[in-house]
This record gives sequence, structure tokens and C-alpha cells, in this order.
Amino acid sequence: MAETGTGQGEDPGGPQPAMVLVRPQMGENIGAAARAMWNFGLDRMRLVAPRDGWPNPAAVAMASGASLVLDAARVHADTDAAIADLAYVYATTARPRDLTKAVFTPEQAMADARARAARGEPVGVLFGAERAGLENADVIRANAVITVPVNPAFASLNLAQCVLLTAYEWRRAGGAGLPERPGKARPATREEVTRMVEELSLRLDARNFFWPAHKRQSLEDNLRNLFQRMDLTDPDVRTLYGVFRTLAEKPPRD
Amino acid sequence: MAETGTGQGEDPGGPQPAMVLVRPQMGENIGAAARAMWNFGLDRMRLVAPRDGWPNPAAVAMASGASLVLDAARVHADTDAAIADLAYVYATTARPRDLTKAVFTPEQAMADARARAARGEPVGVLFGAERAGLENADVIRANAVITVPVNPAFASLNLAQCVLLTAYEWRRAGGAGLPERPGKARPATREEVTRMVEELSLRLDARNFFWPAHKRQSLEDNLRNLFQRMDLTDPDVRTLYGVFRTLAEKPPRD
Repeated sequence: MAETGTGQGEDPGGPQPAMVLVRPQMGENIGAAARAMWNFGLDRMRLVAPRDGWPNPAAVAMASGASLVLDAARVHADTDAAIADLAYVYATTARPRDLTKAVFTPEQAMADARARAARGEPVGVLFGAERAGLENADVIRANAVITVPVNPAFASLNLAQCVLLTAYEWRRAGGAGLPERPGKARPATREEVTRMVEELSLRLDARNFFWPAHKRQSLEDNLRNLFQRMDLTDPDVRTLYGVFRTLAEKPPRD
Repeated sequence: MAETGTGQGEDPGGPQPAMVLVRPQMGENIGAAARAMWNFGLDRMRLVAPRDGWPNPAAVAMASGASLVLDAARVHADTDAAIADLAYVYATTARPRDLTKAVFTPEQAMADARARAARGEPVGVLFGAERAGLENADVIRANAVITVPVNPAFASLNLAQCVLLTAYEWRRAGGAGLPERPGKARPATREEVTRMVEELSLRLDARNFFWPAHKRQSLEDNLRNLFQRMDLTDPDVRTLYGVFRTLAEKPPRD
């Protein structure tokens, strides 16, 4: 079975990929990777032989609000031990290797990982150290490779960025919808907009706006179309009534 | 027409979104944003009032291999100037605001941006300063909002990460189909819409529309937001000028 998260993430109690940092160096980067994971609700980190030991105060300082990820991190002596219980493992690599393996984009990989996790298969992703990335010996242990489609002239994603894009794609593959729509305003009904446009048209007509006569219909249609296609809210309509009334009825100061 | 890139990126000579950093603080973060852009072949950066002036040695040191992005960056005094020539602008925000605007995921926004750019409409994305993000006054100037669907319990993307996800989605959207734009009318630029709203505001102000005084700012913001978010065309703007002038200047027939 897949491990479960802390229950506070995006998929409470549900399966998640293990994010496996292989021989990470700077504690700051481990902390940044924890933040990147937790931004998308992932909290299952595994560390293979972190250079500066564990726990690492620099990692904790960088992780701040995401320190729960570090608290739950498991430390393993080597890659084999870190992935022993996983059914399917993806290795992130910056450049193609001479290895015969399926190569996925992050999007494809995380869609695949979601499907496997949903079947109860525990999955994980290997991330290499800051400079060198994964060694061939690590990539060989994975089932498939993930390569981010970067600019061939400049492929310089750091560890936390690579974790970020992978975690983002995991979340996206889950169909995580949009956050709440800001603004609670009720959309205006077609009728409300029509009534507003009609009042405006009367005011404009009294001022000979729809002229010359043979263009009257198309000018009126244009005006109506302009406001009808605008996705106006109830407060918008009231604002526009106020604007039109103010312009038409109030004399300007001097 | 959309500006073109350096020809070295993912879409040589093709249109790209302008990545507009609004009042960025640390040079390091500007450099990191440049790296994030260039990782996905984007090289059109615009800076609004960078806190520490420009050029900035700390930005250059951080950008290293992506310094061509900084070399080509344009600096503007304010957000209006930075987006004046753009037809459609997205504002990235971490949290929902009480503004009625379309809210896109990065994926939806960059698919939309690709379609607009392919039609020759210059597009751009606003990114806020490190801590506070964009001010409401900046968000109001945009047509739509981008919100990354992060973990609601931990939304702490930094500037470069936000740029990274947006640039990644632009690249991913590369194969997206192009919805037809209804009608052939040229989209209004931000500057044209801003000028129209300013003329309207002057007319309304002369008639004490923005009252009571303590609500003045929010009333003005509402009005601006109402028109800025409407995907207005050049003929729409001319129609609205005509509507406002007619109402304000012409007396009605008895």
C-alpha cells in the first residue's frame, strides 16, 4: 500500500509519491525542497545519505512553515534502502542518458503516478544532488525517467525547482480545481443588463446619439452587444446606472 | 504586434509574454526570475521601479547563464507605463481578492495567452514584490488573474517560483489549439482603456460621483476594475467615449 500523508495536505490520508532526495548537500536546499512539496500538499520526503547529517538546522531554518515535512522525513543509507518498498520509481534527469527507459515529461509521469497510486502501488521520485544530479547507478534503479522540457540552451533547474514542478504536476494530475472565485458578487441576469442598456439607449436617443438614421439599428446593436458580452455582476450594473445618471443629470462644477 | 525574443529561446523570433516584475526588491530574486524565464526560453523581462535601481550587480551575479534576459530588460517608472502597449494582462496573486475578474490557473492562462499571442495580441504577466505581492492598484489594471492552485494551508511560492511555473506552462501550452477571436476588431491596449477611464473619472468627479470622501478610492478602483477587466476592442473604446461625451455634454430634447 502507498503510505499516507499527514492528513493536512491536498489529499488527506490518500496516497502520495515519496520525494526521494539522493545525497543532497546544502541544508538550505533540503528546506527549499520541503517548502516546494508542501506548497502542493505533499509531505513524504525521504533522504538518502544527506551530506551534512540529519537533522540539519539549516534545512529547518529554510523550511519554516513546511517544517512538518522535515519532521516526517525518513533517512536512508543508500538509494536501494530508500526505495525498497516502492512499486514504481521515476528518476529526474536534466539530460537524456544512454539508458533504455521510458522518458516522461513531469505531466505524463505524474498522471502515470496518480494512476498507479490509485491502484494501491506506492510510487516515488528520485532527485539528484544540487550540481551533478543523479548518478547513473541511481537512474538505473528507477523504472522510468522524468525530464523537464527546458530550453536546450539553458537547462539549470535547481533541486527545489525540480521538486516544485513535479509536485505541481502531481497536484494538477489530481484535478485540483481553482481556489475560490474571488468576489462573491452575483452575476447580473440578462434581463438586468437589457434593462440597463435600454435606459441608456433612451438617454442617448434623446441626445441624437443614434445618427444617421440608416445606421441606427447597427449602432444600437453594437451598444447592446458591448454590454451583453461583458459578464457583468449585479454591483457592476448598479455602478453603470450610477455613471450614466450622473453624467446625464448632474451639472458639472463650474 | 507582439515583440519577438532574442531568437535563442524556445520560440525563436515568435511572440512571447512580457514578464513584468512590479517593484521587485532583492536583486537576487530578479536574477532568479531571469533564470526561471530562460529555463523555458523566455527573455522578455520588464521591471517596474526596482527598489535598488538598475542595473543591479546582485541580479547579474545570480542570473549567470541567463544574463541575456537582464541585458534586454526594460525598466519602467510605473505599472501603467510597463503595460501600456499590451493588449491583455494577467496578474498573479497568491490569494483571492475582492475584485470581479476571471481567475485562471497557470495552465489555463498560458493556453489563453498563447492563443492571443498567435493572433498578434501582445500579452504580459504581472508578478508582485517578494513579500506583499501585487497591490490592488496593479491587479485592477490587469484583465484577468492567475492563481496557482497551492495547498491552502501553505501558499508560499516565491517570486522566481511563480515565474517558473508560469514560464513552464507557457512552454507546455506550445501545442495548444487556437480559438478564433469573434470579430476582427483590434483589442484595445491597456493605455487606451486607462485613458478612457481617466476621462470618465474626471467627468464623474466634477459631478461629485466619488462620494463620500472616505470611499473615494474604492469607488474609483471599482470603476477602473469594471472596464479594465472587459476584453474591450478599439471600436468598443470609441463607442464608450461617445456614450460618455453624449451623456455629459448634450442636453436632452425637451
